[in-house]
Amino acid sequence: MNLTIDQKKEIEEQKLQNNKTKRAVSPELEKILYDAVPALDHGFVRVVDYMGDDSSIVQAARVSYGKGTKQVSTDSGLIKYLMRHWHSTPFEMCEIKYHIKLPIFIARQWIRHRTANVNEYSARYSILDKEFYLPSSKNLAAQSTSNRQGRGDVLEGKQAEEVLKLLKSDAERTYDNYETMLNERYDGSTINENKKGLARELARMNLTLNTYTQWYWKTDLLNLMNFLRLRADSHAQYEIRVYADIMLDTVKKWVPITYDAFMDYRVGGTEVSAKGKMIIQKIIKGENVNLETSGMSKREWNEIMTAFDLTDYLK
Amino acid sequence: MNLTIDQKKEIEEQKLQNNKTKRAVSPELEKILYDAVPALDHGFVRVVDYMGDDSSIVQAARVSYGKGTKQVSTDSGLIKYLMRHWHSTPFEMCEIKYHIKLPIFIARQWIRHRTANVNEYSARYSILDKEFYLPSSKNLAAQSTSNRQGRGDVLEGKQAEEVLKLLKSDAERTYDNYETMLNERYDGSTINENKKGLARELARMNLTLNTYTQWYWKTDLLNLMNFLRLRADSHAQYEIRVYADIMLDTVKKWVPITYDAFMDYRVGGTEVSAKGKMIIQKIIKGENVNLETSGMSKREWNEIMTAFDLTDYLK
Amino acid sequence: MNLTIDQKKEIEEQKLQNNKTKRAVSPELEKILYDAVPALDHGFVRVVDYMGDDSSIVQAARVSYGKGTKQVSTDSGLIKYLMRHWHSTPFEMCEIKYHIKLPIFIARQWIRHRTANVNEYSARYSILDKEFYLPSSKNLAAQSTSNRQGRGDVLEGKQAEEVLKLLKSDAERTYDNYETMLNERYDGSTINENKKGLARELARMNLTLNTYTQWYWKTDLLNLMNFLRLRADSHAQYEIRVYADIMLDTVKKWVPITYDAFMDYRVGGTEVSAKGKMIIQKIIKGENVNLETSGMSKREWNEIMTAFDLTDYLK
Amino acid sequence: MNLTIDQKKEIEEQKLQNNKTKRAVSPELEKILYDAVPALDHGFVRVVDYMGDDSSIVQAARVSYGKGTKQVSTDSGLIKYLMRHWHSTPFEMCEIKYHIKLPIFIARQWIRHRTANVNEYSARYSILDKEFYLPSSKNLAAQSTSNRQGRGDVLEGKQAEEVLKLLKSDAERTYDNYETMLNERYDGSTINENKKGLARELARMNLTLNTYTQWYWKTDLLNLMNFLRLRADSHAQYEIRVYADIMLDTVKKWVPITYDAFMDYRVGGTEVSAKGKMIIQKIIKGENVNLETSGMSKREWNEIMTAFDLTDYLK
Repeated sequence: MNLTIDQKKEIEEQKLQNNKTKRAVSPELEKILYDAVPALDHGFVRVVDYMGDDSSIVQAARVSYGKGTKQVSTDSGLIKYLMRHWHSTPFEMCEIKYHIKLPIFIARQWIRHRTANVNEYSARYSILDKEFYLPSSKNLAAQSTSNRQGRGDVLEGKQAEEVLKLLKSDAERTYDNYETMLNERYDGSTINENKKGLARELARMNLTLNTYTQWYWKTDLLNLMNFLRLRADSHAQYEIRVYADIMLDTVKKWVPITYDAFMDYRVGGTEVSAKGKMIIQKIIKGENVNLETSGMSKREWNEIMTAFDLTDYLK
Repeated sequence: MNLTIDQKKEIEEQKLQNNKTKRAVSPELEKILYDAVPALDHGFVRVVDYMGDDSSIVQAARVSYGKGTKQVSTDSGLIKYLMRHWHSTPFEMCEIKYHIKLPIFIARQWIRHRTANVNEYSARYSILDKEFYLPSSKNLAAQSTSNRQGRGDVLEGKQAEEVLKLLKSDAERTYDNYETMLNERYDGSTINENKKGLARELARMNLTLNTYTQWYWKTDLLNLMNFLRLRADSHAQYEIRVYADIMLDTVKKWVPITYDAFMDYRVGGTEVSAKGKMIIQKIIKGENVNLETSGMSKREWNEIMTAFDLTDYLK
Repeated sequence: MNLTIDQKKEIEEQKLQNNKTKRAVSPELEKILYDAVPALDHGFVRVVDYMGDDSSIVQAARVSYGKGTKQVSTDSGLIKYLMRHWHSTPFEMCEIKYHIKLPIFIARQWIRHRTANVNEYSARYSILDKEFYLPSSKNLAAQSTSNRQGRGDVLEGKQAEEVLKLLKSDAERTYDNYETMLNERYDGSTINENKKGLARELARMNLTLNTYTQWYWKTDLLNLMNFLRLRADSHAQYEIRVYADIMLDTVKKWVPITYDAFMDYRVGGTEVSAKGKMIIQKIIKGENVNLETSGMSKREWNEIMTAFDLTDYLK
Repeated sequence: MNLTIDQKKEIEEQKLQNNKTKRAVSPELEKILYDAVPALDHGFVRVVDYMGDDSSIVQAARVSYGKGTKQVSTDSGLIKYLMRHWHSTPFEMCEIKYHIKLPIFIARQWIRHRTANVNEYSARYSILDKEFYLPSSKNLAAQSTSNRQGRGDVLEGKQAEEVLKLLKSDAERTYDNYETMLNERYDGSTINENKKGLARELARMNLTLNTYTQWYWKTDLLNLMNFLRLRADSHAQYEIRVYADIMLDTVKKWVPITYDAFMDYRVGGTEVSAKGKMIIQKIIKGENVNLETSGMSKREWNEIMTAFDLTDYLK
C-alpha cells in the first residue's frame, strides 16, 4: 500500500483532531480512527467515522422493552439475548463509515449488499490511479474440480509465473493505452498538445477489472454483521475476505460485547434443518440413521455431519 | 411536557458527558444534544446522537468526483451544486438519531417513511403512559369543505367545548379500563391481588389513537430532508408539522450550509410541468394563455399561477 | 367477516376475468385469486396479484450461475440448495400483492417489516368502518407470569365477561363519539345540518386501537418468507399469527417447491451457537456436560435442550 | 446483437405460451414480452415478466383515499393528480422484470440504483462471453472542455481509428489471455490436458470493463421512473441512455396513462428554486433582474434562463 504524500498528510491532520463531544465514544476505535490498514497489495481499510457503541444498543432496547429489560441484569446478557433471538432494530442504532480502496472485481461483489451508503470515486470525472491487484503466489489458486465457485490447489512453477506475467502485462498495457486515449497522464500532464483526449467516461472501459477503485461505505451495525457473516466466511472469495477480516477486527474494537455475541451465535454457529434436527436427535438416542431414508442429499448430509464433528458418519 | 424525575436525571447525566473524539463535531448541535424540546401537549423531540457535519458531505463528494470538485471553489458552492442537481449519496454520509414522544395516530403517519431505523416502546412488554393528545382550541379545525384531507375554520363556542370534552373523557375512560383489564396501574401496583390481569398485548387494544408512544428514530440526512420536505410543508397535518418544524431547526444547527441549500432548492422551490413551463414562457412573451387550451385541469392551473404569484390569472 | 354488497360484487367481477398471458402462471393460486379468506372476527386476506412461480426462481438462478447450475439436476434440488445456503436474490424474483383487513394494533406490528409496498386506507380522507376486533373467549389470555411479552392461561368466568364487555362498550362509545365529532355517520349522512364537523384527520384520534383498517401490501417472496418466519412462529402474537398462517397457505399454493424447502430449512429448523454445538457434540460422544461450565445462561441452555428433545437435560 | 441458438429457441418457446389468468394484463406489453430489443453493439433489453397495469395504480389509490377519490372522475385525472403531487405508493404497486445484457462499466453505474432485485451472471461460476462494447464512430466523443463529466466533439480521422484499434486489440488480447489462464475456451473445451486452469474467480480480473455481462433486473414502477428520469436524461452517459430509452418505450406500452403523466411532470418538467421563482416573477412583472443581486451563481442563472427559453438573459 503506497499512500500519496497528500493522503498521508490528510490522515495525520485527521488524527490530530481533539474535539469535545457529549456523544458516546468508543475508546479503542478512536485509537485507530483514520488509520489506513493495508489490504491486498494496494488496498486499504480506514474507519473514518462512527456513531454509538455497545451502550447505544442497550439504550435502544430499553426504550423498546421499557421496564421489561430490567429482568436481564447486565448489558452483556441483554446483547446476547437480542442476538440469540434475532432482534434486529437495536443493532441498527450504531453506524460506521469506512474509506476503502479495493480492486473493481471485488467492488462488484461488495456492492450487492444494498443496504449501505456509498460514494465511489468516479472515473467519469477523474483519472483512475495506476494500481492493479496481482495475487501473491500463494493465492494463485487453480479452479476447484469439485466446487464450481471454489479454489483448488495453488498453481506452481512455470504456470504460476506465466499467469502473473500475463496479469501484469495486460494491466500495464491497457492502462498505458488508457492514458494514450485520454491524451493525458495520471499526473494530469498532457501527452500531445495538438490532440484532443477521448472522454474519460469512455476511456475507462479499456481498464482491466483488477484496477483499484475507492469509496466511502457507510452502514449500520446490523447490516455490517450481515455483510461480515457472508464475507468473512471460508466460502467467500479470498480477496474480499481479506477486507472482511480487517473490518471484523474494527467491530471488536468498536463494540466488544456485540462482537463476542456475533462470534458465538452467527459466525461460530450453525443452522440445522427440520430433517437435520431429527437425525441428530436419533444419533443422540443411539438409533440408526442413514442417508437413504433421511430425505437429504449426500451433500447436505455431509454438511451436517461436519458441523457436529461426526466424521464417522461422512459419506 | 412532563418529564419524569428519572428522565430529567438521565438527560442531566447525558449532558454532563465530556468526551474526547477525533470525529467531526457540530458545535451548535452539541449545545442542544439530549435536550427535550416540547412538542404538542405531552410530546418532545430530542437529538440523542449524530454523525458528520457539512464537511462530511464535501469530503464524500471529493472522494467521488476526485480532482473534479476543485472547480467549485467553496464548500458552500459545492453543497449548493449537489442539492440543485439532486446528487443524493453525499447527503447520506451524515446520520442523526432522535428520541421522539408522539401520539400514536401521528406515529402511524411517520412510520410510512421506511428508510429509517426505529425502536419503539413496546406495549406488549410494558404499560403505556397515561398521556394523550388533546388539541389546543386554536387547532380544533373543522373539516375543509373544498379539500377532502384538509382543515377549514376553527370550531368555536359550545361545539369546541363539546369536542374537547368527548376527546378527554373517552381517552380517560379507555385508559382506566385498560388498567382494570391489566389489573395493574401504570405505577406497577396491582389492583386486585385475587385476580389475573389480561395480557398486555391484548389490553392495549382498548386505548385511543391519541395515546402517546415514543421511539428512537435514526436516519441519514438525505432521508431526513425527504421527510421534512413533506412533513414541514403546509399541506402536512398540523400535528406532524409541529415535530417537523422542530427537527428542521436541529438541521439548521447541525449542517447550516446544507440547511440553506435545502430551504432554497427544496422547501422554497417549486416544480413546473412541461405544460406549465410553456404557459409561463407565453406569459413572459406577452402571449395569450387560457385554461381551456392549456391541457391542464383548473386545479393544476391555479397551482402554477399561485406558485408564480400570478393572481390575475386565477380561475 | 361481513363484506359489503359492493365488495362482493367487485370480487365476483375480478374472479370472472379470463385473460390470456404469456407470463408464468401459478394454477393453484389462480383458483383462490381475489377470494377473501376470513381472519379474526372482521378481517380478511385476499391475494390480488402475483408475479412468477417456482420456475422463475430457477430461471433467475440459472442466469446467475450459468452452466454451473446444471450440476443440480432438478428444480427442486436447486431450490433446496438455494434455501439451505441462504441465497437470497433468486427468491426476490417473485412478487405478491395482498389486500388485508386487520385491526390497527396489528397493523402497527406488521408495518415494522419495511421492505414492502403499502397503500393503507386513509382516515384523513375517509371515515373508518364501524368494525373492531373483540377476542373470542378462548383467546382472552392472561398476562404470562414468566414471559413479559407472552400469554398465560385464559381468563374465565366473570372476569372474562367483564373484559369483553369493557372492550365492546369502549369501542362502541368512542366510535359513536367519532361520528358525533365528525357530525356525520359512516354512511355519509349528516347528523346536524346546522353544525360543522371536526376535521377527519383529528376525529380519528378518538378511535380505539382494535378498530379495523385495510391495506394493499406487496412484497417479494424473500421478504414474505422473512415475515412469515417471524409471524407464523409460536412466539408471535396470536392475532398476527392468524394472518401469517393464511398467508403461509397461499405460499404453498403459489410456489409449492419453495414452500417445502422453507418449512424444512427455516420454519422447522433451528440455530445452534458455537457453544451449543460444542455441548451437542459432547453429548453425542457421551461426555459430561453441565450448565455451569457451558458459558450459557439457564434460559439459553433450556432452549437448545428443547430444540433437540433432550428433556433429561432441562434445568 | 447475436443471440445464440439456445437463446433464440428459449425466446421462441416463451413467446408461444398461452396461459389463462385472472390477473390484470397489459395487452401492448404482452406483444413484445420476451423479445430481445438490441442495445449498443451486443446488448439487449427483454421484458420477461410484469405485474399490474394503469388500473392497478388507480385501484391502490382508491383503497387509500376511499370515497375521497371519487372527486377525480377519471383514471387519467387521478394518475395525473398522483404524479403531480408526488404520491409514491400507488406507483409501487406495479412491478416489472427485465433481462438485460450490458457492458460491465455501464452495469457499475446501473447498480447504484439500489431499490431493485438483481441476479447477475456470475463469473465465479461460469466463463464470460467473448463480447465487448466498441463505440460506433459517431459516439467516439472527446472529453468536454467545459464539463468534467461530459463529452465534447467527436474524434475524427486517424485519432478515431487509433482509439478503436486500441480498444479492440486490448479487449481481444485480455480475453485470449483469460482463456489461457483458465486453460479453457469459452465453448468449454480444454486447451492443454496436462495443465490446471486458474480459478475462474481470479481469471476474470484480467478482462476489460467493456466486456458484456447480463442480469435479471426487477423493480417497481416508482423506482423505474426514478431510474429513467436520471438515465434517459441528456446529462446521462450515452451508453446507459440507450438502455433507458428502450425501457421508456416499454413503460409506454405497459402503463400508457402513467407514461404520459411521467413525461409531462417529470421528464419535461423543471424545478425552480426559491430564488429562481422570484426572478421569474420579476421578469413577468417587467421588473429589472440581474445576476449580481440574484444570489445565484452564473451557472445556476443560465440553467433557469434556459429552462424558460429566456435566451436574452443568458450570461
